[in-house]
Amino acid sequence: MTAEAGEALAHSFRRVGVIAKAASEEALRTAAELEEWLARRGLEVRLEEARLRNITEAAPPFLSGEDVDLVVVLGGDGTLLSVARALPRPVPILGVNMGTLGFLTEINRAELYPGLVRVLAGQFALEERSLLHAELHRDGGKPQTYRVLNDAVIAKTALARIIELTLAVDGNLVGQFRADGLIISTPTGSTAYNLSAGGPILFPQLPVAVITPICAHTLSLRPLVVPDTSRVEVTLRTEREEVYLTLDGQEGTELAHLDRVVIRRGDAPVHLVKVAGRTFYDSLRGKLRWGG
Amino acid sequence: MTAEAGEALAHSFRRVGVIAKAASEEALRTAAELEEWLARRGLEVRLEEARLRNITEAAPPFLSGEDVDLVVVLGGDGTLLSVARALPRPVPILGVNMGTLGFLTEINRAELYPGLVRVLAGQFALEERSLLHAELHRDGGKPQTYRVLNDAVIAKTALARIIELTLAVDGNLVGQFRADGLIISTPTGSTAYNLSAGGPILFPQLPVAVITPICAHTLSLRPLVVPDTSRVEVTLRTEREEVYLTLDGQEGTELAHLDRVVIRRGDAPVHLVKVAGRTFYDSLRGKLRWGG
Amino acid sequence: MTAEAGEALAHSFRRVGVIAKAASEEALRTAAELEEWLARRGLEVRLEEARLRNITEAAPPFLSGEDVDLVVVLGGDGTLLSVARALPRPVPILGVNMGTLGFLTEINRAELYPGLVRVLAGQFALEERSLLHAELHRDGGKPQTYRVLNDAVIAKTALARIIELTLAVDGNLVGQFRADGLIISTPTGSTAYNLSAGGPILFPQLPVAVITPICAHTLSLRPLVVPDTSRVEVTLRTEREEVYLTLDGQEGTELAHLDRVVIRRGDAPVHLVKVAGRTFYDSLRGKLRWGG
Amino acid sequence: MTAEAGEALAHSFRRVGVIAKAASEEALRTAAELEEWLARRGLEVRLEEARLRNITEAAPPFLSGEDVDLVVVLGGDGTLLSVARALPRPVPILGVNMGTLGFLTEINRAELYPGLVRVLAGQFALEERSLLHAELHRDGGKPQTYRVLNDAVIAKTALARIIELTLAVDGNLVGQFRADGLIISTPTGSTAYNLSAGGPILFPQLPVAVITPICAHTLSLRPLVVPDTSRVEVTLRTEREEVYLTLDGQEGTELAHLDRVVIRRGDAPVHLVKVAGRTFYDSLRGKLRWGG
Repeated sequence: MTAEAGEALAHSFRRVGVIAKAASEEALRTAAELEEWLARRGLEVRLEEARLRNITEAAPPFLSGEDVDLVVVLGGDGTLLSVARALPRPVPILGVNMGTLGFLTEINRAELYPGLVRVLAGQFALEERSLLHAELHRDGGKPQTYRVLNDAVIAKTALARIIELTLAVDGNLVGQFRADGLIISTPTGSTAYNLSAGGPILFPQLPVAVITPICAHTLSLRPLVVPDTSRVEVTLRTEREEVYLTLDGQEGTELAHLDRVVIRRGDAPVHLVKVAGRTFYDSLRGKLRWGG
Repeated sequence: MTAEAGEALAHSFRRVGVIAKAASEEALRTAAELEEWLARRGLEVRLEEARLRNITEAAPPFLSGEDVDLVVVLGGDGTLLSVARALPRPVPILGVNMGTLGFLTEINRAELYPGLVRVLAGQFALEERSLLHAELHRDGGKPQTYRVLNDAVIAKTALARIIELTLAVDGNLVGQFRADGLIISTPTGSTAYNLSAGGPILFPQLPVAVITPICAHTLSLRPLVVPDTSRVEVTLRTEREEVYLTLDGQEGTELAHLDRVVIRRGDAPVHLVKVAGRTFYDSLRGKLRWGG
Repeated sequence: MTAEAGEALAHSFRRVGVIAKAASEEALRTAAELEEWLARRGLEVRLEEARLRNITEAAPPFLSGEDVDLVVVLGGDGTLLSVARALPRPVPILGVNMGTLGFLTEINRAELYPGLVRVLAGQFALEERSLLHAELHRDGGKPQTYRVLNDAVIAKTALARIIELTLAVDGNLVGQFRADGLIISTPTGSTAYNLSAGGPILFPQLPVAVITPICAHTLSLRPLVVPDTSRVEVTLRTEREEVYLTLDGQEGTELAHLDRVVIRRGDAPVHLVKVAGRTFYDSLRGKLRWGG
Repeated sequence: MTAEAGEALAHSFRRVGVIAKAASEEALRTAAELEEWLARRGLEVRLEEARLRNITEAAPPFLSGEDVDLVVVLGGDGTLLSVARALPRPVPILGVNMGTLGFLTEINRAELYPGLVRVLAGQFALEERSLLHAELHRDGGKPQTYRVLNDAVIAKTALARIIELTLAVDGNLVGQFRADGLIISTPTGSTAYNLSAGGPILFPQLPVAVITPICAHTLSLRPLVVPDTSRVEVTLRTEREEVYLTLDGQEGTELAHLDRVVIRRGDAPVHLVKVAGRTFYDSLRGKLRWGG
């Protein structure tokens, strides 16, 4: 979206959702302060807390999303992830990090008010981030479905032996592998778990997903980048070992023998508010200490 | 391209270019035999030999390309690469491998005539492969330009010390690294040098390029996948070490201090004739021995 | 051990333990047959079954070990591992694989009787494999201790977030890392989990251990090879995430915040009977399909 | 060597060699200053310059080595490497880095005089670093021989195609590979080129060598750690491509088809003066930014 479009959008900002990480006192304190600041500028505010969920519970949607025009998230990348996945409809999100900037949060605590002034004046851009849609199929029943902004991970637990997985893309068998697991990541998630497992960094707006093995026993297995319109299907071939599907590292469910996880591009993308003038390459250079 | 379009195209086939690897007796013998086979079917044939060029000479265009409707390449992936880069205009290419199938050649020697019967009957599809356009800028002079189907590689020679390179994408500094070199690869080239250097495999039709370091001294450096519309610019920061730019492993030129190599998507793609019913995933599974 | 020493030892063989993988019908059938074969040659036989243990139970020692001169293991590398760790004293072990040869088993089913004839004639060598001794320290209490032939692994479960570990060697801080976990492997275990996680292959008789991170978030972390006389100490810094210590992939125990795992060379090594004339390099070349 | 032994040795120090990197003005200035400082303390000094040699010339031995009791090297790791390889007999070496500390230099410019005071008072230890002995065999002629403190590298030049190498250890075939090259590294060299190519870090005093492929086309090829008493033999199978053997990145020679490079442990080790109280793990943690 162009800056001009941002301006038009900003003029219609009436209600702002403020979602603070419940476990961070600074985030809660900032939220209260921010509520007042926004109210003084004539904006309606909805305050909400983001709680660290038990990884096996499905996240309830954030109510704030329903009738606000902008969501300000006070927390880290993890908080922003959980908000983004649970918003009932696409609302621009401004991520404010209470600590060191991550790859998703846009500004830090010190930049909050100057940043908001610019946002409310329409001096911002919106950046689209695609989500993946994951389905868990079992025994021909109705599949469970999930939204994923970072990654879907199929992995054995620490106590399980190596597992065997079949990977098919668009109905074509890619291979049957022995590994600790498999990560299917969006470009947004490519700098998270995928990177630790040896996967490539993907420019955030690419129309692709990357399939990266975790500790493959099959030594010739390598990360594979496919169109995000592909239908990626992973079938668990192993019996009797504990294997989990986890979504964005925040929700989890145990897999059974012959369970199939099907992944393809999600419907509506997430819209991140860009106001700090930092590019993706600036973030990489800073966080990974690439020189120059 | 759909099979229907293939049929329409096949009906217009009048002249076929046959290009054989000059260093392979079997390829030359097959070319002579094939010439007769095509002539018996009323097709005009142009025969040509592909010679292994000295890596530092620019390849002259294949004349056959000018007025033929289809090119049959008898050789390996390397021969097909050199033909594809040197065709003066986009002509469908059918690659016939004299040995083991690679990633680019479509059929092997035994499948030649059954394959051609199907091609001439219009029972084939065309697969587009993007090229990259590389420019070598020095001292503000007119840049040298190259077409690349696999990769552009900037690398030090065996006797040189580690080199320092600056990478910028679309005018944004990505970093300044110490490494043996850098590979900028198309999806087609992702299964070649890029794979040996630790880069990911890219689905062939993705609109991306991958930038992969060779033996980076900067340990946090990882392969980076960018839109193929990006302007990738690599500047040589090191003085007095021997560094070369090589294109598809077939042309090479020495780089000087502060030389800039600029890479972006090429204009017309290459069209490969698909007739064997093998998918990209079949090739991966077979060649990399992924099980299943 | 030289072949001469092997001969001397063989002359004293009186009692042979035969341990068969309980889950393999072929192993059990072979065990019964082998018992007869050995008895006909005047040897006393003790028959025992090796059961796949629950990973969280400590393995009881194999009774056969107490008074036999040679143990024949019928199963795979996993069965041999569990026998080797649980023998109460060092007895030569001959591994007979019911399927494809692994790195530990010496001969396959077809080579069983020819191999045993040579062993009983003293035509064999003994190969020493060092064990590691692992201690789990908690709250100043008496540590739990384990014997490890392959590896000790400290790793988070699939549902846990990334964990933080401190590594110290001989009292020197090496670093504090964020990762999925850490593998401490013997040379024997270097071709197992360590290899999948990116660790090097170690020649089996080297006096070293290798510490290999699993999916390190700290990108500059690399496998580290240390003397096996070193005291390797790993401390769990993370609270509230599920983390396990697993030994040879066969025993497991949950770790608590600030638990310390201390690893150093074990006392008595394991003695493998070598009779097939295959070197370690032959095994590598065959199993990893290195050409030549 | 213990601190006590250091003291005894220091009392016998009469002549000190000072070798400065010729290309560094600061090193030359410091050398002149140091000469005076040592003379005032009644020590005889021999001053020498270390010039960056052409990589294809054999290095002449440093004369200073012949009759001095201690060598102080003013420069970086590269200068120390070239001195260590060219000393005619084992003399304790103190490395003083003019810039940032590397893995071989012990103290920086600011620590020079305090460090020397301690060295001359015998308050230091000596650390042994093994060298490798490399032989280049051609056509049955007398082999060329080299001493290597870091690594011997067999690698193709930037313009060459992929090469094929046979690796044998102690007469056993390990494999025949296609790769850009192969590094055979000492523990000392493990933090240099080996690390960039994906090899493990080796504790400096381990009796091992590591064989690490450079961009292997054979994807299952992994770094292999072998006893330094092994006879490692690499044969060049490729004809007509430019391939070089380089030693410590400082000497180089072109290889011909069927040339054999044979590597085993060198005779006398190098002795580094340790005075700063930094362990190997401190260096790793600092230079690789491992936290903690």
